[in-house]
Amino acid sequence: MKYSFRNDYNQVGHPRIIQTLLDHANCVNVGYGEDIVTKELENMVSNLVDGDVKIYLLVGGTLANKLVLSKILAPYEAVIACETGHINVHETGAVEQTGHKILTVKKENGKLSSKDIHEVMNIHNEVHRVLPRVVYISNSTEVGTIYKKEELMDLYHTCKQYGLYLFLDGARLPIALTSSANDLNLKDIYNYTDVFYISGTKNGMPLGEMVVVKNELINSNFLYHLKNQGGMVSKTFTLSYMFKEYLKDDFYLELARNANKMAEYLKEELIKLNVNIKYLNDTNQIFVELNNDIIDTLSKEYDFEVWESNSNSTVIRLVTCFNTTLDGCNMLIEDLKKLLN
Amino acid sequence: MKYSFRNDYNQVGHPRIIQTLLDHANCVNVGYGEDIVTKELENMVSNLVDGDVKIYLLVGGTLANKLVLSKILAPYEAVIACETGHINVHETGAVEQTGHKILTVKKENGKLSSKDIHEVMNIHNEVHRVLPRVVYISNSTEVGTIYKKEELMDLYHTCKQYGLYLFLDGARLPIALTSSANDLNLKDIYNYTDVFYISGTKNGMPLGEMVVVKNELINSNFLYHLKNQGGMVSKTFTLSYMFKEYLKDDFYLELARNANKMAEYLKEELIKLNVNIKYLNDTNQIFVELNNDIIDTLSKEYDFEVWESNSNSTVIRLVTCFNTTLDGCNMLIEDLKKLLN
Amino acid sequence: MKYSFRNDYNQVGHPRIIQTLLDHANCVNVGYGEDIVTKELENMVSNLVDGDVKIYLLVGGTLANKLVLSKILAPYEAVIACETGHINVHETGAVEQTGHKILTVKKENGKLSSKDIHEVMNIHNEVHRVLPRVVYISNSTEVGTIYKKEELMDLYHTCKQYGLYLFLDGARLPIALTSSANDLNLKDIYNYTDVFYISGTKNGMPLGEMVVVKNELINSNFLYHLKNQGGMVSKTFTLSYMFKEYLKDDFYLELARNANKMAEYLKEELIKLNVNIKYLNDTNQIFVELNNDIIDTLSKEYDFEVWESNSNSTVIRLVTCFNTTLDGCNMLIEDLKKLLN
Amino acid sequence: MKYSFRNDYNQVGHPRIIQTLLDHANCVNVGYGEDIVTKELENMVSNLVDGDVKIYLLVGGTLANKLVLSKILAPYEAVIACETGHINVHETGAVEQTGHKILTVKKENGKLSSKDIHEVMNIHNEVHRVLPRVVYISNSTEVGTIYKKEELMDLYHTCKQYGLYLFLDGARLPIALTSSANDLNLKDIYNYTDVFYISGTKNGMPLGEMVVVKNELINSNFLYHLKNQGGMVSKTFTLSYMFKEYLKDDFYLELARNANKMAEYLKEELIKLNVNIKYLNDTNQIFVELNNDIIDTLSKEYDFEVWESNSNSTVIRLVTCFNTTLDGCNMLIEDLKKLLN
Repeated sequence: MKYSFRNDYNQVGHPRIIQTLLDHANCVNVGYGEDIVTKELENMVSNLVDGDVKIYLLVGGTLANKLVLSKILAPYEAVIACETGHINVHETGAVEQTGHKILTVKKENGKLSSKDIHEVMNIHNEVHRVLPRVVYISNSTEVGTIYKKEELMDLYHTCKQYGLYLFLDGARLPIALTSSANDLNLKDIYNYTDVFYISGTKNGMPLGEMVVVKNELINSNFLYHLKNQGGMVSKTFTLSYMFKEYLKDDFYLELARNANKMAEYLKEELIKLNVNIKYLNDTNQIFVELNNDIIDTLSKEYDFEVWESNSNSTVIRLVTCFNTTLDGCNMLIEDLKKLLN
Repeated sequence: MKYSFRNDYNQVGHPRIIQTLLDHANCVNVGYGEDIVTKELENMVSNLVDGDVKIYLLVGGTLANKLVLSKILAPYEAVIACETGHINVHETGAVEQTGHKILTVKKENGKLSSKDIHEVMNIHNEVHRVLPRVVYISNSTEVGTIYKKEELMDLYHTCKQYGLYLFLDGARLPIALTSSANDLNLKDIYNYTDVFYISGTKNGMPLGEMVVVKNELINSNFLYHLKNQGGMVSKTFTLSYMFKEYLKDDFYLELARNANKMAEYLKEELIKLNVNIKYLNDTNQIFVELNNDIIDTLSKEYDFEVWESNSNSTVIRLVTCFNTTLDGCNMLIEDLKKLLN
Repeated sequence: MKYSFRNDYNQVGHPRIIQTLLDHANCVNVGYGEDIVTKELENMVSNLVDGDVKIYLLVGGTLANKLVLSKILAPYEAVIACETGHINVHETGAVEQTGHKILTVKKENGKLSSKDIHEVMNIHNEVHRVLPRVVYISNSTEVGTIYKKEELMDLYHTCKQYGLYLFLDGARLPIALTSSANDLNLKDIYNYTDVFYISGTKNGMPLGEMVVVKNELINSNFLYHLKNQGGMVSKTFTLSYMFKEYLKDDFYLELARNANKMAEYLKEELIKLNVNIKYLNDTNQIFVELNNDIIDTLSKEYDFEVWESNSNSTVIRLVTCFNTTLDGCNMLIEDLKKLLN
Repeated sequence: MKYSFRNDYNQVGHPRIIQTLLDHANCVNVGYGEDIVTKELENMVSNLVDGDVKIYLLVGGTLANKLVLSKILAPYEAVIACETGHINVHETGAVEQTGHKILTVKKENGKLSSKDIHEVMNIHNEVHRVLPRVVYISNSTEVGTIYKKEELMDLYHTCKQYGLYLFLDGARLPIALTSSANDLNLKDIYNYTDVFYISGTKNGMPLGEMVVVKNELINSNFLYHLKNQGGMVSKTFTLSYMFKEYLKDDFYLELARNANKMAEYLKEELIKLNVNIKYLNDTNQIFVELNNDIIDTLSKEYDFEVWESNSNSTVIRLVTCFNTTLDGCNMLIEDLKKLLN
């Protein structure tokens, strides 16, 4: 089997998470998230953010995105997002399927700023154009960058000024929060958004996403909406057992920290080899440009995604994750060293 | 903790299923169902039905229903279902949310017949009425009844005569197939429907549903549709590992057989006690009418759903499942015996 | 050409209405309903109902129904209607297309009562069922009956008790208001509903419907919704000119009164002929049962709809309208007299 | 009253069109487009394009766009359009409301080319991205440009190569076909698209759009779709009477020719005055840049839209239409002459 740098969702999951499911195999709970385990998890999250949240557990980031957005938006309302946003590019029109336009902003760094919001709002001021109501951001972003605390606060305050909701896609939130460049914590995420989600899938859980809602209007009848959209998990408690273990003693941050550490190590070593790193960022996605024949050889031993194909060179993406090992990284570096000589 | 007869989806899952997940914790696979494990599962199902199927794994019966129906139906087309059908009553309008009307037929036994189809088709013959395109049935049904082979064949042939697709909701298909009154097997289900699903959730898996598609038109671009509707599971292989174990050596039937056996035992013992059993059926749902004071006492030790409340008596529903035990049943019978004296 | 009793929307329109369009052919106005003519019409309606309304002009009763309902309903919310309701039977799933379930009540007389609302609300009290939010009624109804003032008031108060909106489909509202059995006026309609519409199409206008909204929440951003749903008419003022003429000096009631008068005359004469009248009602739809051979002969000279076909007899529907004449009615009666002898 | 250069849909309509409605005021026809007048119109169009078409009459360009697109597209399919496309900018998300993404291409001239299609198709080749199925173009475009015959043929053939449908928004098709730079006729439009519509609203009819469908798959069950989407006009024949007059002896082209002639005259005169004309094009939209104080004075006597506001200058849009007169144009030129001195 090839060593995988393909993605952060190619492993079944961390054994500790699955073990907790096995430990509770015969436990009996009421369905649909009205059980005590889910309530305990909700309290856990409220404590973590020092607030009062409602949580909704479901399976799939695309489902989380379309559910949250369609909960907020009236038929004629729209969401503002970066052109690179996952909802805009890689969800096969899932948001539009709920009836809503995505207003996109072209940003190299994958991050929205207050200035972007002002510009969109200035244009959208008449009944023949959609009415923006939500701002969608990802952290870390689709290009691996992260929001700084000041940026998030600024964006949130601008949203409030326009009556916009701020929704943070947390498919890689644990990665963002454990990046060496990060200055945000979970409490900040809670304070400076209206709703966000934390992915389990991309950080060591077999599956599962947790939507965290602060805003009362979004919470209102959310369970009806969850069921109506097909997102309600009858045995929600199976996800709750796993998420409790995931959050316990910041295990989810520990898992993400490994991904970031391994990425940093790889970047350092790649720089030593004078390899061209593109879209340099502070998280677990490394974009490396190499000659095509080197890529050919590497691909026999390692699994990764091809990002851009050119006539002579190719940009590949190396993703580290919760169970990437130093040995794995060193193996790659050693093999690369030989190929580059 | 009370002994539970509440439902067949209140336990986390059978340890054997979860153990297989643990055994493969560190396995690496490509995402989105394009992996080898899912392919192996697909082959397994093809062999079981002696045909050539495509399978799609997702989480949630409501999601399965709305996904399959919206894949088939044009905006002005409709689905025919029993008034008691799950999609009509208990899915918070999930099918209508995809834009489609449910044409309902009132049936005491929860089963559609050819005659029903003829009647609906006779009325719906002009542009001011929706155009029926799918027939939705459940087996076992929402009231615990099951389809006989002759009934299913007849219904299927009538569907073909009108150009209708036949979709079978298999939330309790393993239960149906292991009822003592059943004369259908999985191959029949494949032969006499266009698409069906087998639930894992209601029969010992922590979560997961498997949609099985025979019809080529339904298969066309199904993965696009799955993603668009928010149903695609990025780590599909986690479900595949579990479903392989579930289907292996007919383990899923073994699990369901226990539920049916326990239900039969309970029914026999209840009849000996001269208790009034309503909606008598051949599967794992038992509806018992008892005096209110007896219900009050029972509810302190046992978990169950109240079905109908009257001034003196109450109808409760007892559901047996894959891990209901003879001891559990005997305990209930003994306690009831004392209360009835 | 046959004399037509087919429907009330088979004539192009009353010349007086079309003449007003011709008189203003070269008038210039701003588009999208922001013009002065539409404003004048809105004031006219406010005066008529002694209130403060917003009006929205569009083309088509089905469009009016789907627009109003989808403006009010959240994705998981539903509308309560009679089984015979136009939205349920004859709009090819237009309401469901906007994502909403219609909860139907079986009523012989086509009218909803408070009792019906209580019953529906009692059942729909959990997240697995849709959440009712609107009550839809028609006046006159699809079977020709009309609401009495007391009935409408009672229904409205019950709606308010449950937080439900009351929407009145006024495809035949002028007919209802000029029935000899009617005790409602336009002011009552305004006072005891949240939103209603008055059809021009079915009462002498070439086309056009006017939605009248009292409720502020429904009004909020209605123009965005109108555009989003494809219902905004760029030259709204063309409809406004016609509606002003239609409402002027109660011309719309005068037109409808003719339809009712002719219907009453026809009914009286038919009764004298001992003809069987079914679904007897107080408006312009007359359902007559006649021998099949008589129907055959009649259909050569008169245009009407066949309602029910039996082996010996047929029920036909005779509809009178704004330009049905006494001569036309007498001709029919005379011909029928001969055929019955 | 100010002289209007605001738009081509601010007049009620040409008297000849309205007179025909008056002439047929008492005519009786069956509803829903199944009448003989509509059939005659359909034959007229078939003759004009030397083909075999189906036509569907409705009210509103936005409705026409959303209806046609949602008829063709499966939930996960998308439409390709220019960023400036009407469906993308000025329809308040009407297309997205039907569940579909618009894939936009940035083009200065508002026209799509084969090259654009190739580029979009190259990227959209996997299940995580929407599947393009329709190409949407406008002629004349939103910036006043027109397609040349060679361009349209090339685009159509590219569409066929990819299995894409080509849909032409004809809100200003008569204007395009009578531009002095045009080399297309209605037959070409029919031959090199799958479906298009001709607007009445923007060229002298009080309201009404005619969708012309060549493709059999699009035609299939179109009336069901029309009703379902709320677009069916019960008295379709009222539109048919007007459209027959509109098409008779190419009256619709005569009306449009006046708009183009007046625009050409205005452009010539403006150029003589050395005024800056932006986005110069061959149809009836003229974008003129003038000093702000001149604009202020002009706006007291003339009605027009402000396109861009800068600190010193403003770009206004002057639109000519079917009833713009030489006197009106001369008046504007004379007034402008004085202001520029």
